Amino acid sequence: MRVFGVDPGLTRCGFGVVDGGPGRAVKIVAVDVVRTSVDDELAIRLMHLADEVEVWLDRYRPEVIAIERVFSQHNVRTAMATAQAGGVVALAAARRGLPVMFHTPSEVKAAVTGSGRADKAQVTMMVTKLLGLVEAPKPADAADALALAICHIWRAPMQSRMAQAQAKAAEMARTHKLKLAQAAKNGGRTK
Amino acid sequence: MRVFGVDPGLTRCGFGVVDGGPGRAVKIVAVDVVRTSVDDELAIRLMHLADEVEVWLDRYRPEVIAIERVFSQHNVRTAMATAQAGGVVALAAARRGLPVMFHTPSEVKAAVTGSGRADKAQVTMMVTKLLGLVEAPKPADAADALALAICHIWRAPMQSRMAQAQAKAAEMARTHKLKLAQAAKNGGRTK
Repeated sequence: MRVFGVDPGLTRCGFGVVDGGPGRAVKIVAVDVVRTSVDDELAIRLMHLADEVEVWLDRYRPEVIAIERVFSQHNVRTAMATAQAGGVVALAAARRGLPVMFHTPSEVKAAVTGSGRADKAQVTMMVTKLLGLVEAPKPADAADALALAICHIWRAPMQSRMAQAQAKAAEMARTHKLKLAQAAKNGGRTK
Repeated sequence: MRVFGVDPGLTRCGFGVVDGGPGRAVKIVAVDVVRTSVDDELAIRLMHLADEVEVWLDRYRPEVIAIERVFSQHNVRTAMATAQAGGVVALAAARRGLPVMFHTPSEVKAAVTGSGRADKAQVTMMVTKLLGLVEAPKPADAADALALAICHIWRAPMQSRMAQAQAKAAEMARTHKLKLAQAAKNGGRTK
């Protein structure tokens, strides 16, 4: 499985492509940080980022995109820009029919370090180790993107089992509701 | 000037197109609320929204897009989805070379009601009145989208004057800095 991990951002957006599978070693394919100019307007910056995503999708042909799910940040303006960046990345993937998965920072940290509260240095160290890199990917956004891809590779089998279980439960609930409604309707008619 | 106002959201996204100019009456062209299914994944919902934006851009050919700038919401998850929705709308406009402007809710309220702290009912009432509508646009997201477009029409001349002034000030600052650097360099050489 080839995963394109994206640590969304407008000033710096981390891109990392990793090959791997459950129980197999992970292998780095590409890593970089895409920057857009603070002098440009928001919409233009989003477009530049989206263009870069298209280039990477063309070049590396990932099977799935894993994006960091932003919950909150101290700076609301930054959080919004980050969410908007994540949105255009998700859109580019959806337009190509690629599955998009979101993982929270703590899921990513837990996946690569064993602790959901690990710091950036620890994440970078583990990413460097797991991918067998000679030096640490810099800046942190680049390491985070690789961590996201690794996290997805390792979590994917569990997530897909959970999604199947949820879909089954929802289907059962629907069938049950339908039967109840049918029973109520029949009951109503016989009155 | 034809403005496409967008009150971003994934569950309900308000779309409103308004014609007008500074000092002229505003005229409604179209209004609607686009919904995406909560059963779909986020990326798919963003794609459906983006598709709908494309349809409206083709159909109504606005000259500018005005989007509500989301600063914070009680529910962080909703705020993020709203920001992501706004991001894909801005991207669609940028791809067509259309200018995208963001206005805060209080700017919009102040523009149509005179008060930045007006409530939703007041905004809806004023939008109905200003556009000479027989009945109030529903739901509130539809009225908000129209209010955004009106706000933009009225604020645009002021904003463009401010942007020009800012660009001029930045240019002057750059020239000044360059001269200082040049002076320092020359000073360094003669030492």
